[in-house]
Amino acid sequence: MERKILITDCADAQGLIAKITGVCFQHQLNIIKNSEFVDNGQGRFFMRTELEGEFNDEGLLADLRKVLPEQNHMTLVNAGKKRIVVMVTKEAHCLGDILMKSFYGALDVEIAAVVSNYEILKPLTDKFDVPFHFVSHEGVTRGEHEQKMLSIIDTYNAEYLVLAKYMRVLTPEFVERYPNRIINIHHSFLPAFVGASPYRQAWERGVKIIGATAHFVNNCLDEGPIIKQDVIPVDHHYSAEDMARSGRDVEKSVLSKALQLVLNEQVVVYGNKTVVF
Amino acid sequence: MERKILITDCADAQGLIAKITGVCFQHQLNIIKNSEFVDNGQGRFFMRTELEGEFNDEGLLADLRKVLPEQNHMTLVNAGKKRIVVMVTKEAHCLGDILMKSFYGALDVEIAAVVSNYEILKPLTDKFDVPFHFVSHEGVTRGEHEQKMLSIIDTYNAEYLVLAKYMRVLTPEFVERYPNRIINIHHSFLPAFVGASPYRQAWERGVKIIGATAHFVNNCLDEGPIIKQDVIPVDHHYSAEDMARSGRDVEKSVLSKALQLVLNEQVVVYGNKTVVF
Amino acid sequence: MERKILITDCADAQGLIAKITGVCFQHQLNIIKNSEFVDNGQGRFFMRTELEGEFNDEGLLADLRKVLPEQNHMTLVNAGKKRIVVMVTKEAHCLGDILMKSFYGALDVEIAAVVSNYEILKPLTDKFDVPFHFVSHEGVTRGEHEQKMLSIIDTYNAEYLVLAKYMRVLTPEFVERYPNRIINIHHSFLPAFVGASPYRQAWERGVKIIGATAHFVNNCLDEGPIIKQDVIPVDHHYSAEDMARSGRDVEKSVLSKALQLVLNEQVVVYGNKTVVF
Amino acid sequence: MERKILITDCADAQGLIAKITGVCFQHQLNIIKNSEFVDNGQGRFFMRTELEGEFNDEGLLADLRKVLPEQNHMTLVNAGKKRIVVMVTKEAHCLGDILMKSFYGALDVEIAAVVSNYEILKPLTDKFDVPFHFVSHEGVTRGEHEQKMLSIIDTYNAEYLVLAKYMRVLTPEFVERYPNRIINIHHSFLPAFVGASPYRQAWERGVKIIGATAHFVNNCLDEGPIIKQDVIPVDHHYSAEDMARSGRDVEKSVLSKALQLVLNEQVVVYGNKTVVF
Repeated sequence: MERKILITDCADAQGLIAKITGVCFQHQLNIIKNSEFVDNGQGRFFMRTELEGEFNDEGLLADLRKVLPEQNHMTLVNAGKKRIVVMVTKEAHCLGDILMKSFYGALDVEIAAVVSNYEILKPLTDKFDVPFHFVSHEGVTRGEHEQKMLSIIDTYNAEYLVLAKYMRVLTPEFVERYPNRIINIHHSFLPAFVGASPYRQAWERGVKIIGATAHFVNNCLDEGPIIKQDVIPVDHHYSAEDMARSGRDVEKSVLSKALQLVLNEQVVVYGNKTVVF
Repeated sequence: MERKILITDCADAQGLIAKITGVCFQHQLNIIKNSEFVDNGQGRFFMRTELEGEFNDEGLLADLRKVLPEQNHMTLVNAGKKRIVVMVTKEAHCLGDILMKSFYGALDVEIAAVVSNYEILKPLTDKFDVPFHFVSHEGVTRGEHEQKMLSIIDTYNAEYLVLAKYMRVLTPEFVERYPNRIINIHHSFLPAFVGASPYRQAWERGVKIIGATAHFVNNCLDEGPIIKQDVIPVDHHYSAEDMARSGRDVEKSVLSKALQLVLNEQVVVYGNKTVVF
Repeated sequence: MERKILITDCADAQGLIAKITGVCFQHQLNIIKNSEFVDNGQGRFFMRTELEGEFNDEGLLADLRKVLPEQNHMTLVNAGKKRIVVMVTKEAHCLGDILMKSFYGALDVEIAAVVSNYEILKPLTDKFDVPFHFVSHEGVTRGEHEQKMLSIIDTYNAEYLVLAKYMRVLTPEFVERYPNRIINIHHSFLPAFVGASPYRQAWERGVKIIGATAHFVNNCLDEGPIIKQDVIPVDHHYSAEDMARSGRDVEKSVLSKALQLVLNEQVVVYGNKTVVF
Repeated sequence: MERKILITDCADAQGLIAKITGVCFQHQLNIIKNSEFVDNGQGRFFMRTELEGEFNDEGLLADLRKVLPEQNHMTLVNAGKKRIVVMVTKEAHCLGDILMKSFYGALDVEIAAVVSNYEILKPLTDKFDVPFHFVSHEGVTRGEHEQKMLSIIDTYNAEYLVLAKYMRVLTPEFVERYPNRIINIHHSFLPAFVGASPYRQAWERGVKIIGATAHFVNNCLDEGPIIKQDVIPVDHHYSAEDMARSGRDVEKSVLSKALQLVLNEQVVVYGNKTVVF
């Protein structure tokens, strides 16, 4: 008995749920969980179906294709452990949370490697017996630095790259190598305070709530599809540094939750947005 | 074109979604929104289907019955405005919120009448041109009082009774007249602080969060199926009275949200719990 | 026995709390509640002292002035009911909440009048026996319209103007008449989505949380000192209209809470920020 | 220049703030932060004063005693790192969070040792070079087990014991050794679901919110003074196991925050409640 997740994305039409679940039924697959969403404005249909049974992948997809509108998009992937590479700079909290949760089984993930432009997080990574690669950005161009990083990252065949407070902007060339497969945590409640020093910006504006945003990376900085956001209250007692300190807990929690959703195949990217089942 | 909501509740079996949506498709009904839930522990299947089209109610239910397991339970009701009677004692905030939201169209409800054991909320009710009935509980037995209330309430053919801070315990005889159709707001985060003076109990215990709970009423006080809960933080500065004052905003908000869910046919009672689609 | 609130704002120095509370003690005033805040970055001291007793206002302030650094700023105001004028356009929810809470005593305020550029909220205002003034903006310049509004508003000697979804931008001339005395509710989590149609902007960006912001109005649109913010989660099911609908509950709640803080003299404006005691 | 925290707890009287801050001023101590609270019902005054300067501890306390009402209670402690011993059973998440936050400097604490009745968390503890002591409860009486634990714990001179999911009930004899110095995390929103299996109890009751509570341990199980609580929403999709899984994030976060407050000397126990400055 295997468990797989089928994501269907196509133009909306009458009877789609009946047709798709009917095909699954013919294939003697049991539906563990089913969620659908119709974007009525765009006339678009999305469905996530968690299936259990003996799979004939090709046959199933072929039979589904017969009942779906043209230009449908389907993915059928195994439930279970995914492989990630984590990119970091100097801050430990997000990486620490991912390592720790993976250690005690709260994140179903294989951390293949940690790659960083500083050495500072090597001791932390070593504790969990995960390979750590230091690739300095000094004395090389941005392009060269990224090529060095990629030459390491690519060897791990990771399904996702996780930017756990990686503080350098990625070039479009880098991003295109992992389309919709790079997850970033931004330390503000986007789209407020894009760019550098969001906590300082927040402090200067005198906001009463700060937040964090996990999103897929696309070519526009801080503008990719949002996966998860959360906030905490602050008040006039908070300096910009206090906000940064308190914000770390939200950052790590939002990134872990977003990662969990992505690993569970609950997130479908759609234009510049996500459907989170 | 009508819009109706089909709630299906039956033993779980393979292919149920395909079968039910298939029948709807045959009846040329468009599925606007579909949500299902399987309680794997109990082997129970629940589905809420929002349908649009020309309905043959009897035919649809008969065709569905053919494909469902025995001992299924289905309801098919019109989407749209429901009729309620509100029962109150002395406090204005929950009644005020329901009247106000109904006035500006945020609650899709017809408030048929307000019934109270005090006269104090008559001026508020009058502002919104809703009939107000004062039925004193003084000098009569509990049973007589309830009979008097019911003789008025029953004339309004309300789909739901809303206890908007009605501060008397209802007898089983009363409750049985409106099974799973009486919604109460309890001013604590149930099951903490059942019974009287929950804010005082909360203050004495020194909790750091207080809440409110909207639930259906059954024969055990404060123990019916929970529909909605919410909380707010408190601290040592709060006296029991401060908690009560701050709690009112949560009470009114939780009751309004629970009512909205019930009016939208999003709540299915199941044992002593609810499935909230 | 009177109750008054003393707000002190001056350069920070050693012994300020001892000196100020010492003077209050000499005046035989009882401190009901005291809160202080030092902005260490700016070297600025703020204190809010709730006092009870027999007041000699001039004497107290004179004695305090002797112990404070130069260029101090003090205010001493009566605790208790303040007078407001509410400005609205077409939406009922914020006005409705203020009227209702004032009616049942949850907001300690006298609503002197409601002024609007539409007639639509007159019936609601009439229910609560509050004067309603309709001043159309059609066929007049912005300046003329504001002059007409002010000629009415000024007669009420209001301590605060509350923009309860007043959907027109005020000119600097208007704002200067009520410096730090105009409270606005903006229907987004500022500084995200300034300007028009914030819910549509939020929907287009695909955010997972929406919010509302109450702030004092200054000459830059949506950029005045923030008093209170709150948020609610949304997901892909929400259209821009759904966000607007759900957002109304947050808007009304944030505005009411901000108003309560201002009425209690808990808010001190400081540069473009607020200290909220 | 040292930094110390003065906690004053005495009967309320006029002029206390002036008197206490006056003595501090005479001692040429700078007040970094001051917070006071009066319980008007009990006529009790509490103040937390963060002081900086050159301290003459004995002299300061003696001078303060002269101006305070009789039966006052004062503590003057150094700000900065405190020493704790952590007690655990099998679950890693709370211990993991404390170890990790201590590692990257987010908790200002020295973790002197981890003591457990199982060996399962030794590998995790070892990663952070903290001594781990395994003291099996098998084959010994409860009293003997606790004596063995205490004979180890006492050697560390810890200021606080942290029960990071230590799943055995402590005897009064144990608790009395560390009065108001043992912090426990209970996996429910107390006082709902005291005792064993709170998530199962929550699931059976069908609640829509679950939570966690950090409290000091006294002789009544789950009834000690509450320090911090937090909650997360759940729905009908959650099994008792899902609730437990999701609850872990709240448990660890609530325990860390409570610990931080205690380490900062922000928590004053008062009867069976806490004042949290």
